[in-house]
Amino acid sequence: MPPSAPRSTQTPLYKQVADKVAKMIADGALRPGERTPSLREIGEQQGVSMSTAVQAFVELESRGLVEPRHKSGFFVKAPPQVLPDLPGPPRVPMSGSLGNRHASLFDAVVAGGVIALGGAVPSPDILPTAKLNRMLAEKARHAGARGVMYDLPPGSEVLRRQISKRMMKGGAVVAPAEIITTCGATEALMLCLRAVTKPGDVVAVETPTYFGILHVLEALELRALEIPTDPRTGLRLDVLEGALKNQQVNACIALPAFSNPLGASMPDEAKQRLVAMLKEREIPLIEDDVFGELPFGPKRARTCKSYDESGLVLFCSSFSKTLAPGYRVGWVVPGRYYHAVRMAKLTHTMATATLPELAIASFLSEGGYDHWLRSVRSIYKENVSRMRRAILEEFPTGTTVTTPQGGFLLWVTMPAMVDALELYDRALAKGVSIAPGQLFSLERSYANCIRISCGDQWSARMAGAIRTLGSLAKRQVK
Amino acid sequence: MPPSAPRSTQTPLYKQVADKVAKMIADGALRPGERTPSLREIGEQQGVSMSTAVQAFVELESRGLVEPRHKSGFFVKAPPQVLPDLPGPPRVPMSGSLGNRHASLFDAVVAGGVIALGGAVPSPDILPTAKLNRMLAEKARHAGARGVMYDLPPGSEVLRRQISKRMMKGGAVVAPAEIITTCGATEALMLCLRAVTKPGDVVAVETPTYFGILHVLEALELRALEIPTDPRTGLRLDVLEGALKNQQVNACIALPAFSNPLGASMPDEAKQRLVAMLKEREIPLIEDDVFGELPFGPKRARTCKSYDESGLVLFCSSFSKTLAPGYRVGWVVPGRYYHAVRMAKLTHTMATATLPELAIASFLSEGGYDHWLRSVRSIYKENVSRMRRAILEEFPTGTTVTTPQGGFLLWVTMPAMVDALELYDRALAKGVSIAPGQLFSLERSYANCIRISCGDQWSARMAGAIRTLGSLAKRQVK
Repeated sequence: MPPSAPRSTQTPLYKQVADKVAKMIADGALRPGERTPSLREIGEQQGVSMSTAVQAFVELESRGLVEPRHKSGFFVKAPPQVLPDLPGPPRVPMSGSLGNRHASLFDAVVAGGVIALGGAVPSPDILPTAKLNRMLAEKARHAGARGVMYDLPPGSEVLRRQISKRMMKGGAVVAPAEIITTCGATEALMLCLRAVTKPGDVVAVETPTYFGILHVLEALELRALEIPTDPRTGLRLDVLEGALKNQQVNACIALPAFSNPLGASMPDEAKQRLVAMLKEREIPLIEDDVFGELPFGPKRARTCKSYDESGLVLFCSSFSKTLAPGYRVGWVVPGRYYHAVRMAKLTHTMATATLPELAIASFLSEGGYDHWLRSVRSIYKENVSRMRRAILEEFPTGTTVTTPQGGFLLWVTMPAMVDALELYDRALAKGVSIAPGQLFSLERSYANCIRISCGDQWSARMAGAIRTLGSLAKRQVK
Repeated sequence: MPPSAPRSTQTPLYKQVADKVAKMIADGALRPGERTPSLREIGEQQGVSMSTAVQAFVELESRGLVEPRHKSGFFVKAPPQVLPDLPGPPRVPMSGSLGNRHASLFDAVVAGGVIALGGAVPSPDILPTAKLNRMLAEKARHAGARGVMYDLPPGSEVLRRQISKRMMKGGAVVAPAEIITTCGATEALMLCLRAVTKPGDVVAVETPTYFGILHVLEALELRALEIPTDPRTGLRLDVLEGALKNQQVNACIALPAFSNPLGASMPDEAKQRLVAMLKEREIPLIEDDVFGELPFGPKRARTCKSYDESGLVLFCSSFSKTLAPGYRVGWVVPGRYYHAVRMAKLTHTMATATLPELAIASFLSEGGYDHWLRSVRSIYKENVSRMRRAILEEFPTGTTVTTPQGGFLLWVTMPAMVDALELYDRALAKGVSIAPGQLFSLERSYANCIRISCGDQWSARMAGAIRTLGSLAKRQVK
């Protein structure tokens, strides 16, 4: 095949070049008042002659997009009036697969101007934002070469030493050398699944469960076995045990501490029994503990990892619920799968960003992390309690709400005729975002449920949002 | 099944607790002079009685590990003399699968005290380390809430706007909205492969090629079709074309700009032809451009993306070769696979770390990036040239070295009897790390080749390292 000439012959060359520059302006890559690339640059970049470049700029000038300034080249004149018809990325539709729903939930948050009760994200007004950013600034100023270099897996040693100490509070004695830092718990979860499963494998999960988990399972072509979960005590071990007897299960994911979305707390004996039950069959357990440091009571519970003597428990957590989601710092203790997880980390993202790791290590060692946790726990406790009362007051008769003992999530079950997806759409139109129940199961159960996040101070604005939600739900009942 | 009691009965309980604390000390989680958790805390965390905790501390004291201080609890006394026998993570062996080799290469770098010519990593002494860290500090101080919050995909808009401008220098008009930021090019590559392939698919790659790519293919259970690559002009299109006629190929990965490891530069007509050839068969092309901004000449070449009219080219790059590997900021322009890549990003790491993104955006907009690139290009050019001469001088007769026109990598082909893995082991023992040729092919070809990185200023130390390598290689020839 001879080298082909993919350039279209329908539009004159200078117009094609002008269209491209117009698109840069329309897209905001070149802004009003900014100098455009020079004629020579355009010529070289687009592989056209100088005279074609000149023609292109005459065309752009005639469209009112650029203006020449004496001896300094062309400048962008004004915001574009007409969008060019070159295709941009299509928008994520509001319906469709689980994944798209998941993305649209984020779109709502990113868009801003919305009371975001949908994402399980703490408010930056509650987080120790200023202090943490100051610590990062401090680290950046003094890190030198270390700050710009890879912090290859297993990641920052000072951070791992701090994490090791925190893990002991949950009863697990874990050496810094057994820990691998990750870009949040999301990466940790995926690394674990890549280490312990292959496509087609069956993974037992709670139901309802965090949609991010279901989405990772989908992405890795794993099959989810949804195990009923008690809103108070978590994963139903009797059901799990029955399932293990009847079918192949290759891994299990549990959220024993203030699960997402139910806020369930597994009793210690249940954790111990779960670890033993899986050990008997050599099934790895992935423990997601992202809310573990946020009990309403004075002390944190033991982790499943603390009962693990065979290295079958892969423990995942992050600082996204307690310090800074945007720092993207989490960790995994992969037990006997250490090598596989470390290799997966290398191919996944190579390393975790160095300076955010160091900033978080500083906060843990000298930022008063425990003091801060105590204060934020009481804020969440208060907010969860007020939100609960408001929901029971404003929502249709027959609505029930969970009573979590930690974290900041509420699971709301409305009368059967309420459709959460419809409620989601209508609420978003009124500037309130929620997480519809259908997201929390691959079988699209929980159509009359929603998850409400209480990751912020209680406020009149929030009370108003609950009133809005309540009245929209009531309309569906009548 | 009744709840089991996995705790061992052979060792007394207090000793088990003491062993755990001893391990924390040995692992460095508790350091000399530091206060240990209190008796009460230990009791609660380990689920033992107060008297058992006391016994454990008596035991620890008798082992000389802790000492009580009046009214302030126990403190770690001295570095541990004996390592406890609880299992830590096993070490990565020096031989074995490709992945393990890959990891061991990094171990050498992480270990320090080694002249690291093995990794394709720029030296922090060359990078604009101080300025960049200062910009990050500045961003961290003023970012407020934004700094700690998720920057959900597609990632920071200010950064994407800057990237859009840079992409134009390579001839590709790409809107900020078509770009997704990633945790480096490693994540970008993996997201692209996840978007366009499924396990078992065949991916055409250069050979020799960057081992990270081969490793990602292995991880995703993809089959690599290794296409011979010319050290000057890159991927052999005649061979690729023949292969496309004879077998199913699901995707292609090319490094048209100063490829890793060969340093080859694809001519513009070849890029155009490659894009057209793949378009004809609707095969996606993943373009890895991490060295694209580092030509030795005055201007950068066009990208394959600039010839892409059908959205089949997925363009990947990062700032890891030009600014700061440790910031973990890269990007992808996924063309028609935008949605799939964006969803993959959510399940992969949720988001890219916010503040590093903003710091890099600042450097691009007001840090004098182009000026900086000009100066670093001349450093790399000089270093590559000196390193080349030194290799030809010191290595066995018959050794050949590539003549790249950009980047900072050299590919050294030694006489056939030299074994690069053996050279690697011997060189490492003498404090010099290289990348053995066997890593760059799944078929373990290139046994007599090594890749040498020139990502640092030329120095006497480096000259010494080349002398060491040369004499080790010569010993294998005789």
